[in-house]
Amino acid sequence: MAIEAAGQGGSPAAIKDAPVETSLADLASPAATPAGGSAAAVMGGIGAALVAMVCHLTIGRKKYAAVEAELSAVLVAADALRLRMVAAIEEDVAAFGTVMAAYALPRETEAQIASRGAAIQAALRLATEAPLACARLCAEAIELAATVSAKGNATVISDGGVAVLAAHAALRSAALNVAVNLKAIEDRAFAAAARAEMETLLAAGAARAEATYLLVKTQLD
Amino acid sequence: MAIEAAGQGGSPAAIKDAPVETSLADLASPAATPAGGSAAAVMGGIGAALVAMVCHLTIGRKKYAAVEAELSAVLVAADALRLRMVAAIEEDVAAFGTVMAAYALPRETEAQIASRGAAIQAALRLATEAPLACARLCAEAIELAATVSAKGNATVISDGGVAVLAAHAALRSAALNVAVNLKAIEDRAFAAAARAEMETLLAAGAARAEATYLLVKTQLD
Repeated sequence: MAIEAAGQGGSPAAIKDAPVETSLADLASPAATPAGGSAAAVMGGIGAALVAMVCHLTIGRKKYAAVEAELSAVLVAADALRLRMVAAIEEDVAAFGTVMAAYALPRETEAQIASRGAAIQAALRLATEAPLACARLCAEAIELAATVSAKGNATVISDGGVAVLAAHAALRSAALNVAVNLKAIEDRAFAAAARAEMETLLAAGAARAEATYLLVKTQLD
Repeated sequence: MAIEAAGQGGSPAAIKDAPVETSLADLASPAATPAGGSAAAVMGGIGAALVAMVCHLTIGRKKYAAVEAELSAVLVAADALRLRMVAAIEEDVAAFGTVMAAYALPRETEAQIASRGAAIQAALRLATEAPLACARLCAEAIELAATVSAKGNATVISDGGVAVLAAHAALRSAALNVAVNLKAIEDRAFAAAARAEMETLLAAGAARAEATYLLVKTQLD
């Protein structure tokens, strides 16, 4: 979300520790955080979690012995990814707090105005890097979800499909949060690089996610 | 998820009350629930929650006086929808529990086999109706997200975009859960009706969600 509309932010620690029902109520509130950036990380976390579940339900089954080593590696990666997504929820909230704090700096003297401007720009870069980092994690989650959907236990293929849908929605959500912060960034080289990386992640993610979703849906229809 | 791979299910009450971090760990576990059906409802809840947030940050602003009445109605609908999504998490888990219980019925005598078969079919209908009901809620969430993205406070348009992405991923996820349960349903008329409704929801939802996402992305680029 952009600054102009922001209410008060929540505490970073509160979000990952809050019950799901309460978290959704927090998300619905007028408070500045949690908002779309945190929601992206939660959806990415859902994707990573379901990848792990499919791995658990594939590993150790005779029928899937041929993919056991590969899915064991996917499981390790998915578990790590889930924890990084949880951290990304907090990073999003913290970055937003930094932006809010920068905007709140005094602006009475010329020196204050200059130093506030610099602080805002630095904070906006942080607030761009947080969803960009989340987007990279989402791209990884899409890859893992594609693997488990293609090779995992066929009886839980719908969960592989949900994993890829969640990870892809998370990637596109993170992209929107990158874009909203880039709008106010004055460093054009930084903005161009971030935009280019985001577009690459989006294009690759969309192709992989749609192919995987179709694979899953075809198997279920 | 399908029955064959299922481990033990979680308790319905535990999920909505568990912290986000713990819920993601539960989702990652080999337990049968929570799985993709619950994940769909959570994503739908994220969509509804962000719609409400955009409403809160639009209502009462002079610049948006013209849409205040409409967005006040959207807010009421979004808050109700969020609570129904939380209920849908529990309904998914409960329906799956019913299916598990039916499969666990004794099958020693012919009478037992027949009565177990009937119980399984009844349970599978429940387990189809739960994600179908969730899909209907997701379709509503997409509509609300489309409205707030087009008419809500422009400074939080990225949150409207995340709302529509979450609701659409939830709709498609619910569809996968409908499909997986339909596979084992013997009542062809029931299955055909459920499939037809799902396809209608999917087609309408995809068109509305993609148009809204493009609207948001264009405004941010």
